[in-house]
Amino acid sequence: MSMDAVVYKGEREVAVEAVEEPQIEHPNDVVIDITTTCICGSDLHMYEGRTAAEPGIVFGHENMGIVEEVGEAVSGLEVGDRVVAPFNVACGFCENCENGYTGFCTNVNPGFAGGAYGYVAMGPYQGGQAEKLRIPYADFNALKLPDGREHEDSFSLLADIFPTGWHGTELANLESGDSVAIYGAGPVGLMAAYSAKLKGAAEIYVVDRVPSRLALAEEHCDATPINFEEGDPVEQIKEIHGGGVDKGVDAVGYQAIDPDKEADSAYDPARENPAVVINNLIRTVRPTGELGIPGLYVPDDPGAPDEMAAQGRLGIDFGLLFEKGQALGTGQCNVKEYNRKLRDMIIEGRADPSWVVSHRVDLEDAPEMYEKFDNREEGVTKVLLEP
Amino acid sequence: MSMDAVVYKGEREVAVEAVEEPQIEHPNDVVIDITTTCICGSDLHMYEGRTAAEPGIVFGHENMGIVEEVGEAVSGLEVGDRVVAPFNVACGFCENCENGYTGFCTNVNPGFAGGAYGYVAMGPYQGGQAEKLRIPYADFNALKLPDGREHEDSFSLLADIFPTGWHGTELANLESGDSVAIYGAGPVGLMAAYSAKLKGAAEIYVVDRVPSRLALAEEHCDATPINFEEGDPVEQIKEIHGGGVDKGVDAVGYQAIDPDKEADSAYDPARENPAVVINNLIRTVRPTGELGIPGLYVPDDPGAPDEMAAQGRLGIDFGLLFEKGQALGTGQCNVKEYNRKLRDMIIEGRADPSWVVSHRVDLEDAPEMYEKFDNREEGVTKVLLEP
Amino acid sequence: MSMDAVVYKGEREVAVEAVEEPQIEHPNDVVIDITTTCICGSDLHMYEGRTAAEPGIVFGHENMGIVEEVGEAVSGLEVGDRVVAPFNVACGFCENCENGYTGFCTNVNPGFAGGAYGYVAMGPYQGGQAEKLRIPYADFNALKLPDGREHEDSFSLLADIFPTGWHGTELANLESGDSVAIYGAGPVGLMAAYSAKLKGAAEIYVVDRVPSRLALAEEHCDATPINFEEGDPVEQIKEIHGGGVDKGVDAVGYQAIDPDKEADSAYDPARENPAVVINNLIRTVRPTGELGIPGLYVPDDPGAPDEMAAQGRLGIDFGLLFEKGQALGTGQCNVKEYNRKLRDMIIEGRADPSWVVSHRVDLEDAPEMYEKFDNREEGVTKVLLEP
Amino acid sequence: MSMDAVVYKGEREVAVEAVEEPQIEHPNDVVIDITTTCICGSDLHMYEGRTAAEPGIVFGHENMGIVEEVGEAVSGLEVGDRVVAPFNVACGFCENCENGYTGFCTNVNPGFAGGAYGYVAMGPYQGGQAEKLRIPYADFNALKLPDGREHEDSFSLLADIFPTGWHGTELANLESGDSVAIYGAGPVGLMAAYSAKLKGAAEIYVVDRVPSRLALAEEHCDATPINFEEGDPVEQIKEIHGGGVDKGVDAVGYQAIDPDKEADSAYDPARENPAVVINNLIRTVRPTGELGIPGLYVPDDPGAPDEMAAQGRLGIDFGLLFEKGQALGTGQCNVKEYNRKLRDMIIEGRADPSWVVSHRVDLEDAPEMYEKFDNREEGVTKVLLEP
Repeated sequence: MSMDAVVYKGEREVAVEAVEEPQIEHPNDVVIDITTTCICGSDLHMYEGRTAAEPGIVFGHENMGIVEEVGEAVSGLEVGDRVVAPFNVACGFCENCENGYTGFCTNVNPGFAGGAYGYVAMGPYQGGQAEKLRIPYADFNALKLPDGREHEDSFSLLADIFPTGWHGTELANLESGDSVAIYGAGPVGLMAAYSAKLKGAAEIYVVDRVPSRLALAEEHCDATPINFEEGDPVEQIKEIHGGGVDKGVDAVGYQAIDPDKEADSAYDPARENPAVVINNLIRTVRPTGELGIPGLYVPDDPGAPDEMAAQGRLGIDFGLLFEKGQALGTGQCNVKEYNRKLRDMIIEGRADPSWVVSHRVDLEDAPEMYEKFDNREEGVTKVLLEP
Repeated sequence: MSMDAVVYKGEREVAVEAVEEPQIEHPNDVVIDITTTCICGSDLHMYEGRTAAEPGIVFGHENMGIVEEVGEAVSGLEVGDRVVAPFNVACGFCENCENGYTGFCTNVNPGFAGGAYGYVAMGPYQGGQAEKLRIPYADFNALKLPDGREHEDSFSLLADIFPTGWHGTELANLESGDSVAIYGAGPVGLMAAYSAKLKGAAEIYVVDRVPSRLALAEEHCDATPINFEEGDPVEQIKEIHGGGVDKGVDAVGYQAIDPDKEADSAYDPARENPAVVINNLIRTVRPTGELGIPGLYVPDDPGAPDEMAAQGRLGIDFGLLFEKGQALGTGQCNVKEYNRKLRDMIIEGRADPSWVVSHRVDLEDAPEMYEKFDNREEGVTKVLLEP
Repeated sequence: MSMDAVVYKGEREVAVEAVEEPQIEHPNDVVIDITTTCICGSDLHMYEGRTAAEPGIVFGHENMGIVEEVGEAVSGLEVGDRVVAPFNVACGFCENCENGYTGFCTNVNPGFAGGAYGYVAMGPYQGGQAEKLRIPYADFNALKLPDGREHEDSFSLLADIFPTGWHGTELANLESGDSVAIYGAGPVGLMAAYSAKLKGAAEIYVVDRVPSRLALAEEHCDATPINFEEGDPVEQIKEIHGGGVDKGVDAVGYQAIDPDKEADSAYDPARENPAVVINNLIRTVRPTGELGIPGLYVPDDPGAPDEMAAQGRLGIDFGLLFEKGQALGTGQCNVKEYNRKLRDMIIEGRADPSWVVSHRVDLEDAPEMYEKFDNREEGVTKVLLEP
Repeated sequence: MSMDAVVYKGEREVAVEAVEEPQIEHPNDVVIDITTTCICGSDLHMYEGRTAAEPGIVFGHENMGIVEEVGEAVSGLEVGDRVVAPFNVACGFCENCENGYTGFCTNVNPGFAGGAYGYVAMGPYQGGQAEKLRIPYADFNALKLPDGREHEDSFSLLADIFPTGWHGTELANLESGDSVAIYGAGPVGLMAAYSAKLKGAAEIYVVDRVPSRLALAEEHCDATPINFEEGDPVEQIKEIHGGGVDKGVDAVGYQAIDPDKEADSAYDPARENPAVVINNLIRTVRPTGELGIPGLYVPDDPGAPDEMAAQGRLGIDFGLLFEKGQALGTGQCNVKEYNRKLRDMIIEGRADPSWVVSHRVDLEDAPEMYEKFDNREEGVTKVLLEP
């Protein structure tokens, strides 16, 4: 049996093609019919050829749908259940899973800590930008949702970006009443700002250069927008706040743009400076403050601006960091740590992150949407695909 | 009235000279007669001319003694009380002090977060390598000790290195049953290893190149010694442990020696590589592990091996750190966070860190001991001065 | 010099009388001109003769005003500063204060852990329902506010009930996404519900029997009102929620009314059952849940319904508590733990608790307002006095 | 196929009888050959007829052995693996398991939070005082051990009492340098005291009346023994310590003996007072201190001294608890929270709890040992059975 899926063809090219349908491979698996699957900013790393991804990969790690088949060892799920799957694949019983670090499972991806669907080097798990998806260790990896179609957009964001944004604020130990600066107003940055609002942050600064994204941060997160093309963002924040803020979140990662570098086009890799956000955060946050870094950094970047950065070695202002006694937390989100509570907040109407969704389109439109998203077209914030 | 004190005269020169006796300057002050004051590894940064310290400074931030005079607003101390003072000077009521960050007090050193006795840029507080010392906000800054002379050596270590070593393990969130690697077997590293033992760590690795220091770690901390001159310390640890350890502590700081660099003499600044310990720790610690960094890093190092390092910007393997989802904590120790409990452990016989003390000499011998300590002479671990 | 103050005259009687003006008694004191001072539910315990309070006490532990005189050892305050004082009097340097337990200071009230203004057995600190107030250890105990009159109502609530309500949710370890049941919709219960909302609780249930208070909880805290006169509150909550909730807060204390007891009048002490709220909470909260108990319990209650309760010994369903593996935290609020962040939330417009204030009257009207508040008159929620 | 097992026959009677051998019932099961299984103090509750246990139950919830058969969905275990099983049976994916509360799993025992082997009302899981045991959700519930026979006694204690004693200190938030009082020197109390020592407690008081048990506490835990038959234990501790201690642990539970009650025999139920330990702890621990309560309390006790206690309602000094601002944690141990780290401490030689074992006997000797243990015979501390 075959099904349609979004397949990586090579640098800046994806196609919707027929691939083999997934099947139950292990008694703890389920297979779901995808109802919504999202394009993620991290898919662009592969799409742009900035990773070791080989053609043929089925993309898609933000997946939800209806259980269609259940392995015989699964005890908590039935055919017809509506579920959302964390982007992490995790076993549930290794030391890291036991401690809540499901993003660093040591069983699902031999030789590495952490697995995911449809992602290079994250294990043999086919992506969900397709009609169906196999979920391993399904009792552990599938979160049940209320039946029906309600909150479909919001629930789909539970697979990755809402928990990942939340994770950014957790890594920074954000508490009610804190002031916080969030670098990046892409989907994760916006979700981090929204998380900060939901947690009762006293002041939220969001730094980006795309006016429409900054406008979303202001409208939906009560954030103060800081456009880094209009002046040093650190100075802008310090002037408004009256000094360093309590906490900081890096929702940008290694493909950061250096405001001090000139560029020919709107998005020019020559402007990249992989350490610029971290160093700005060190300056933005006050002594004893904490930095949450969910933005992606990699130990191997073929497209890096210099040789040191190509090996993931960055020039960090560690002397200043130490003098200020700051702490920092990093790493991809352990989605299961948060998805249950965030689901409940959505059900009860306390949270509705669906405003970040700009497009819901047919699966066949994926190639076009990848292109637009990669071009950072104004108004393309978050794209959902519907098989 | 004048008294004897250890005065900085210039690069690699101190002298015992007569200086003005300290006096009560504020109703919350006390003045103590010093009974023991220690030479600290961080004094060597000034001694070696690696800071902006000007001649004339009285050194000494590890001080204990007997209260000799009490300001009229002090309510918890009396003449004759035996006390030890944290090296931090702190007010007790700023936001940082309230939150336990007494090493980052914003009131005692205008324009900076943190104050200390006898240290460049740490405020106008005369050091205690002298006959007397003024302690500001004395109710907050002086910890009472049992009368008499018992535990004098151990108690003197409560001013800095015992809490600072402990702090290293706290920054790494070391818990009973963890495996931990500690880089550096100087006084702070040894105290970190001892703290790890007291907390019930399952495995303790201590990395250094001085055999006598490694022997102390083995004897008093049940640590596995790792000599980095005998091979890559990361590989040595991983081979014994069978993979990455849970936690890591950097008790070295920016004047780290790179094992891969050749040298002409035993202690050759040309072998320095300020990021080598941090990068080794990132490799030594397993995914989701945590790094505690009490070792000193500075934003301004006139003697740095390269221009970037001179501004405290270090080449950190951030891509690897992120991939492993590690967290790290930094900064000088907030001594008050720990000194009360550590004092009680000493009183009850549960802790006795005095084995780290190698010399107790007269204050007049300070110049000679500074020279020996600076030369990293075998057997000179920790020097106490007695006025 | 004399001033007007609210003086306790005996059971259910207070009068505004001339008393001696407070003065600087210690170099760390300040004296403030009161601009707002509140009547607290806990004042009623004394007012009703349910304590050992002797006539002559000046009431008032919720105080704010303008610094009028500054002791010579005070370094962070100046004449003219606008401040609010926590109801706790605390030294700032005892072990409990150091650990953040400023409600249990061991220095300010010999033989007891904890001091307060204008309260029986809480030390020799005159209350602030008066024209002036002396604040001891003023650098530690006075929180600075922006100049002017803005947010006067909200800021006055920082002395006690806003932090105390918040404390209830902290004692229960309330986290974003949790469901929580709060017993009591008096000022503290309403502030606990408001705190739960600010922290992002998913569901908030508030239990009381006064419709106007329940209406406030619904309107300002998005809470589900539960009237315990209309049926077992535990069953009501479980039916709506579908089982036990995550967390619970007891904002009632020992003068709790037992819904199962009949009464002749609206407020009849014969209906009291000091353990009823705790036992209901144990049933309301699910296994592994946590209970925060800021509501007052006393070891000595002359008006208790039975002999055991008179000694503060209550019949608690401990077998069920244990079977469910619940934890609980108790005790009066350590106001300093929260007042700074809550102040910032007010300044930034993230929090505005002033809706709980029902009356702002002249100090002279205190006797009348005490009577109304004691009668639990509809619409008398929180009364502020203005000298 | 049949095997030998310890079967409950009725009040104070067990027999070794042939029962059906366990088999793989679900793909996630394994079956192990028992090498060591322990008699637990909580088995005595059933043995003495103080529960609703019906004859026919196979006892035994402290089990270790060698994997003999593996279900087809199990991925981390192989035939021949040496494992120890937590006494809790847990699914690994319900909300409580996810949060680490594996003692309160909501899937393994319908209608109740928590399951266990061989225990009344804890689900349909046959006990392990037998030749074989079925372990459900085996990847989650079986902890791997090094091959061989080394540390057999110590490892067997990982099933329950070592983690449960540790849990007591965790529920009390015991930290290095704390003083702690532990009520009860049975196996759990001794393990709590040993845990306190391993964590670096400064002072450890152990309260009991059996001299040989107190002697073990003194010898192996460096504890100060307090014999409650020789005077009020609270006063004894306060006099030695100089006031209330930081933390307290109740390792006794509801069958506590009231020192103030006279008795005819050594162990006389008429001396029971189920609240006496909790109330003593409230007095023993200082204001702001914390109480860990791993000792068993039940909502239904047919043998209780009074009607209130029969329903698990105890007269707790809640007024004093509140005045002191104490917190308390309760509930059976979530063994998986600790067993991995404790195993590592045993392997590395940092912990060796085997001193608590007084007897290792053949399975056939179980009836005799039950009788001796129930009689609290001197020298019968912990009994291991070997099939």
